[in-house]
Amino acid sequence: MKNAFYAQSGGVTAVINASACGVIETARKHRNKIGKVYAGRHGILGALTEDMIDTSKESRAAISALRHTPGGAFGSARYKLAGLDKNRAQYARLIDIFRAHDIGYFFYNGGNDSMDTAQKVSEIAVQMSYPITCVGIPKTVDNDLPVTDCCPGFGSAAKYIAISTREAALDVASMARTSTKVFVLEVMGRHAGWMAAAGGLAGEKAGDAPHIILFPEITFDRELFLAKVKLCVQKYGYCVVVVSEGVRGPDGKFLAEAGTKDAFGHAQLGGVGPVVAQMTQQAWGFKFHWAVADYLQRSARHIASKVDVNQAYAVGKAAVELALKGRNAVMPVIVRKSSKPYRWAIGEAPLSAIANQEKKVPRNFITADGFGITAACRNYLSPLIGGEDYPPYRNGLPSYVSLKGVSVVKRLRTPFVV
Amino acid sequence: MKNAFYAQSGGVTAVINASACGVIETARKHRNKIGKVYAGRHGILGALTEDMIDTSKESRAAISALRHTPGGAFGSARYKLAGLDKNRAQYARLIDIFRAHDIGYFFYNGGNDSMDTAQKVSEIAVQMSYPITCVGIPKTVDNDLPVTDCCPGFGSAAKYIAISTREAALDVASMARTSTKVFVLEVMGRHAGWMAAAGGLAGEKAGDAPHIILFPEITFDRELFLAKVKLCVQKYGYCVVVVSEGVRGPDGKFLAEAGTKDAFGHAQLGGVGPVVAQMTQQAWGFKFHWAVADYLQRSARHIASKVDVNQAYAVGKAAVELALKGRNAVMPVIVRKSSKPYRWAIGEAPLSAIANQEKKVPRNFITADGFGITAACRNYLSPLIGGEDYPPYRNGLPSYVSLKGVSVVKRLRTPFVV
Repeated sequence: MKNAFYAQSGGVTAVINASACGVIETARKHRNKIGKVYAGRHGILGALTEDMIDTSKESRAAISALRHTPGGAFGSARYKLAGLDKNRAQYARLIDIFRAHDIGYFFYNGGNDSMDTAQKVSEIAVQMSYPITCVGIPKTVDNDLPVTDCCPGFGSAAKYIAISTREAALDVASMARTSTKVFVLEVMGRHAGWMAAAGGLAGEKAGDAPHIILFPEITFDRELFLAKVKLCVQKYGYCVVVVSEGVRGPDGKFLAEAGTKDAFGHAQLGGVGPVVAQMTQQAWGFKFHWAVADYLQRSARHIASKVDVNQAYAVGKAAVELALKGRNAVMPVIVRKSSKPYRWAIGEAPLSAIANQEKKVPRNFITADGFGITAACRNYLSPLIGGEDYPPYRNGLPSYVSLKGVSVVKRLRTPFVV
Repeated sequence: MKNAFYAQSGGVTAVINASACGVIETARKHRNKIGKVYAGRHGILGALTEDMIDTSKESRAAISALRHTPGGAFGSARYKLAGLDKNRAQYARLIDIFRAHDIGYFFYNGGNDSMDTAQKVSEIAVQMSYPITCVGIPKTVDNDLPVTDCCPGFGSAAKYIAISTREAALDVASMARTSTKVFVLEVMGRHAGWMAAAGGLAGEKAGDAPHIILFPEITFDRELFLAKVKLCVQKYGYCVVVVSEGVRGPDGKFLAEAGTKDAFGHAQLGGVGPVVAQMTQQAWGFKFHWAVADYLQRSARHIASKVDVNQAYAVGKAAVELALKGRNAVMPVIVRKSSKPYRWAIGEAPLSAIANQEKKVPRNFITADGFGITAACRNYLSPLIGGEDYPPYRNGLPSYVSLKGVSVVKRLRTPFVV
């Protein structure tokens, strides 16, 4: 009976711990087949440095509470393993660790890069004749993994952005007569505009905010943008803009980089939100406000999508079940069965089909003028923000769990410098 | 039987419509004493320009839904009436409007400035021998009105800030090993640090985020701040900062203004959040992230404090009851009976005691080093974020009401230019 290794990788989400919960609870149901689940402290670094948490020391209640706790309970890492040919020592070290701790299952919870890592681990295990079953678990607010219909983490960020846009728009609408005319909300999504698109769900009929969405998939056109802002202010009295941090100008540079410099000549501090807001003031004299959601949008467990929480748990559970069936180098995916009513199931895909791919917002999801979402996009996005899954509260605040985090005793004599 | 006039003034909140709901529902219960409630479109401008909404045309369900709808349903205005001596014509115009529409009750829902206006209206009514009962209704996320223990609108913004701080901190803690070390959340509060203080509720034990709060009440000391950031990163691995937009340096200038200039020499786009975040990178090389909550914090009805919603409704209701008792030039206030358990009641105060006053965070609510909140502050703040009051949802989004907004037929022949 082998132990399992689980790690969180890359930017965390409001529901990545729900996947961890799915992994651990499911493993505990198969005590006859899986021994202990060791979680890497700070992702793959935890394996490389033999710094692991023994999840068997955590109570059933604590593991259950992971389902409603945002962030990465075991610590995550932005650390990409080099290619097999470039840093074979890293992969060999992983195998050493697995061997020392009798680990037969490798669960890696992350995005594109992480699936690449998981695949390489499975390859080197074969080369080094160490039997291990590697299963990826999808996670990313960016929603940019291929094959899977959506990515756990995205639905909750999308719900947060749609709600925030709707709420802030009501505020601006109240004030526009004598004060703010333009409100800009900056959201994440460096390469793909899924989160920006989610802002579009805030509006349901013509004239509703947001009036303009700026996608990384559409080259920013200053004149068209300014003309549309002016038109909206004339027509509705105000204009709400949702802008992706990844928007680029015709020169291919991020708009956020095109802005100001400080007294030392360093690149400007603000993001793209303040840049486009300021633009409207310079052109038309409109008073503006802007917000940058940043980490708030990917940690807002208080308003997580129930669908997203369920899917995050389901992919964690499915990963263990796939591993127990001996499926190697695969990742559970979300398969959409129907949109209205929304029905989904868990499928699987080879890691090779997922690794290093990026799914952008398709052109037919963006309106002809490049500033809004189409009915097809709405049809795709709407189910993903469905349902609320409120965490428990104590003293007016969500009661999030802190794990004991008991370390696994080290067995290797050699340290490893990362 | 006289009609009533109601208007929303200044920056709106997540619960100002709950006060409107309290006013209208209570007035409807006294149909034998109060005729119709006319709401000014865009605050006092609606009175000056005879642009009013007849709330009697709204269904019971629509008025009830105001309780869970953020923003200002009738439109608000940032418009301060001049002093009586300076623009007597404005006040005379108000009396003309009241006379034309048989208005005997004036309910003004706002902050310090608004209470000043309400008081002046009551004075000129006496001078012009027009009998009207003027009652203020407190509202401000800034929590800076005197006499009242707290201000409706603040509790919900405070809850949003405390939750956002807690959630983002979990995210940062996960990532700190290989990525972001410093996270800065910028909150509102130009003159008083109540909202910044609310961020302090996110932490419950030593070492919990936020590690640093920057108050407008404490002059910013760059060296002390940077030293504390470094200490936190060394001790905890990361540092979470909540900064009030109103923080000033030793020169008395807003820190937000001390930042960058754009290519045209205009003042920098970013707020104080990016300024202090960047500072830590320049000094220590820490990778940072920052968020600016802006309107999101004062419109976040999805996570409103139940206590706040109840109090907002209660002051609206009490305003009508005070008016019916003939109390003039007063404002209902929140009176704290006890903190543990939290018990409160509605009292009243003369408008003259409220107008143009500003209640800042007292020094004994701020820790000796100027970077945190004391137990006394926590004791004061904690009950105000108590309880959740979730709005209804449809398709994954809060279902907020849009009123029909039927205009009252104009009776005056002369327009009024504001």
